[in-house]
Amino acid sequence: MSKVAILGFGVVGSGVAEVLKQNGTHIDEKVHAPVELKYILDVRDFPDSPFAPLVIHDFAIIEQDPEIDIVVETIGGAKIAREFTLRALEAGKSVITSNKELVAKHGFELMELAKKRNVSYLYEASVGGGIPIIRPLKQCLAANEITQICGILNGTTNYILTRMIRAGLSFDMALKEAQQNGYAEADPTADVEGHDACRKICILASLAFGKHIYPEQAPSEGIRGVSLADVAYAESCGRKIKLLGRAIRGDDGKIRAFVAPHLVNEANPLAGVEDVFNAITVKGNAIGDVMFYGRGAGKLPTASAVVADVMDAARNKDQPKYLDWGPGGEDVTLPPDDVSSPWYVRAESSTELLRAALGDVISLARPGAPEGEAAVLTCPMTRGELEERLSRIRLLSVFRILED
Amino acid sequence: MSKVAILGFGVVGSGVAEVLKQNGTHIDEKVHAPVELKYILDVRDFPDSPFAPLVIHDFAIIEQDPEIDIVVETIGGAKIAREFTLRALEAGKSVITSNKELVAKHGFELMELAKKRNVSYLYEASVGGGIPIIRPLKQCLAANEITQICGILNGTTNYILTRMIRAGLSFDMALKEAQQNGYAEADPTADVEGHDACRKICILASLAFGKHIYPEQAPSEGIRGVSLADVAYAESCGRKIKLLGRAIRGDDGKIRAFVAPHLVNEANPLAGVEDVFNAITVKGNAIGDVMFYGRGAGKLPTASAVVADVMDAARNKDQPKYLDWGPGGEDVTLPPDDVSSPWYVRAESSTELLRAALGDVISLARPGAPEGEAAVLTCPMTRGELEERLSRIRLLSVFRILED
Repeated sequence: MSKVAILGFGVVGSGVAEVLKQNGTHIDEKVHAPVELKYILDVRDFPDSPFAPLVIHDFAIIEQDPEIDIVVETIGGAKIAREFTLRALEAGKSVITSNKELVAKHGFELMELAKKRNVSYLYEASVGGGIPIIRPLKQCLAANEITQICGILNGTTNYILTRMIRAGLSFDMALKEAQQNGYAEADPTADVEGHDACRKICILASLAFGKHIYPEQAPSEGIRGVSLADVAYAESCGRKIKLLGRAIRGDDGKIRAFVAPHLVNEANPLAGVEDVFNAITVKGNAIGDVMFYGRGAGKLPTASAVVADVMDAARNKDQPKYLDWGPGGEDVTLPPDDVSSPWYVRAESSTELLRAALGDVISLARPGAPEGEAAVLTCPMTRGELEERLSRIRLLSVFRILED
Repeated sequence: MSKVAILGFGVVGSGVAEVLKQNGTHIDEKVHAPVELKYILDVRDFPDSPFAPLVIHDFAIIEQDPEIDIVVETIGGAKIAREFTLRALEAGKSVITSNKELVAKHGFELMELAKKRNVSYLYEASVGGGIPIIRPLKQCLAANEITQICGILNGTTNYILTRMIRAGLSFDMALKEAQQNGYAEADPTADVEGHDACRKICILASLAFGKHIYPEQAPSEGIRGVSLADVAYAESCGRKIKLLGRAIRGDDGKIRAFVAPHLVNEANPLAGVEDVFNAITVKGNAIGDVMFYGRGAGKLPTASAVVADVMDAARNKDQPKYLDWGPGGEDVTLPPDDVSSPWYVRAESSTELLRAALGDVISLARPGAPEGEAAVLTCPMTRGELEERLSRIRLLSVFRILED
């Protein structure tokens, strides 16, 4: 018998309550013991919800109730969520979270505490919504030396880019549409600036490479700089613009993690990932490329990942599983400056001047290009090299090209 | 400390030896104990292999060596492989396999025995090569009621279909090319007739729905009946022909499992799975569609899945994990006859006659179609209904259309 408390009755929290209720029998059977929701903690009341009788407002009730052995944290943010997580773990309760900010910022410390208390701290839902990625990365790919992770990790920006590409909407119009459809928040900064994708690539990289990689170690560039002109040039050479989170292990063992818009070849399966879908590719030395694909967000997909973790914690009460990693540090990462790649460059210049500066380039064209605009694809080089060569040219857009 | 014996030094077996050696340190670290390859059983000698000193010819040595706690079975087939697996499990050794035929035919019996002996019987590599699918299906999607599994499960047929679609090769030419490239065996029957895909969908369905589903319960149709005319008609309506293994749970709780060529809409991510790649989509009531994609075969991808299982068995010696299912039976499945879907029909007929027989249809055209040939897409109906309506018409091809 396991009793569960949910912290935060928002989109994901209420989804967790629904999945627990709707799939109850099925879940009890698979866990071989009942899993019962006892409390929902929120500052608000929900008089019209069928879960109204479970709603409480004081965390101490959960903390002090010895019957509660699993706490689901779906509050979000890294303040009160962190405090409650620490207190729940200290009280010997397993904690399941969908909170990527908390895991990305404090994962190591929380996992250490969980280990000390012999309970689980699980976070499958923090990356890729319902897509199973955390466990496969840790367990199924265990025999591989992972060399690179690359993913479309944010549904909001992928939706915006898809609408720019397919419907010819400007960034601002596509953002407005995403907000109207509930795919973007009123304040879209975390999504649009790449912060959300940054947290997720940090979690994946920490797990894959075994050391905590902090968001401030992964430079992030969002999609505000992507224009319809760039979309058109990309299309002219069989590519699509996608916001990618990447983590690359160099031969020196250091990790280069970053988030940035990329041109992706249409033959690459990542190019076909549209709308709010997410996809994550993992490169291993034995397995080659593996891709995981699905709805990266949404109430029920995310809730189902949380509930799978709840079931896991319930089943393994006496022998919690650790999906953990080691401590981080400045020496774990390097900025991606030395990662060489071909580049897409759009500039107030001419093809001739760009060729003179960059050497071999592929010149691109688009209908309606203004005079004095040129766009090219370069040979592989580092960012520093590129910027040095282009120091006298007024740049409009510079994006990496994902090499297959 | 775990000592390992490999049974069968073929493509996968030798890959396992290589991955164990190449990623040795890394594996030992992750398992927190050394994992050492002690024997390789084969009828042949391999004097030029670096593993020559480990090769033995008598299974009894492995069976009776108390140091061996993990046996890797990469023999294939369901005869000698079954005997050795039974004897290894009886002797209290965990068994890891890539042998889909054995798991599909005797999985339940072998898992039962493993449980009785408190050892692991793991088979991640039996489906999808290196793609992690068995564990995610069991664990990460645990909170879902799974309603459908659909996958491109056989790399050989997908390669042949890709070559027919992209290069316009006939089936026979594409098969010959696949054989020359090592993607098809000299006797391609198991692949081309859909038997291999059938075994795999049976394994996935057994795991997802909890009851053993035997290959003879899953009617299988291969790709010999797919012609370039069908490829052209499919293209004319934005679809690609793919060999799909499907398992659908009806509202009556019965499973309809089958393998057949389907027309797949180009917007469906399965349509973009080309060459020898595999992909598996799983539909859950909470998660929606999730897709797993990667190299479905090949020495190192498959070997890396085997080695991940070896590591899992080594780590959980005292508490083996069971990725098992319950007993099968005639009442578990129904033939797919009552599964309604739209159909693609090519016939020696006219659009008018087909419309008269089938009601609303979409008429298709292709360049160079001979007189007296017609092709249409129908409304959803069962196979029985379709055949009854077309009983007086000479049919050339009849394939299901995958509904998105």
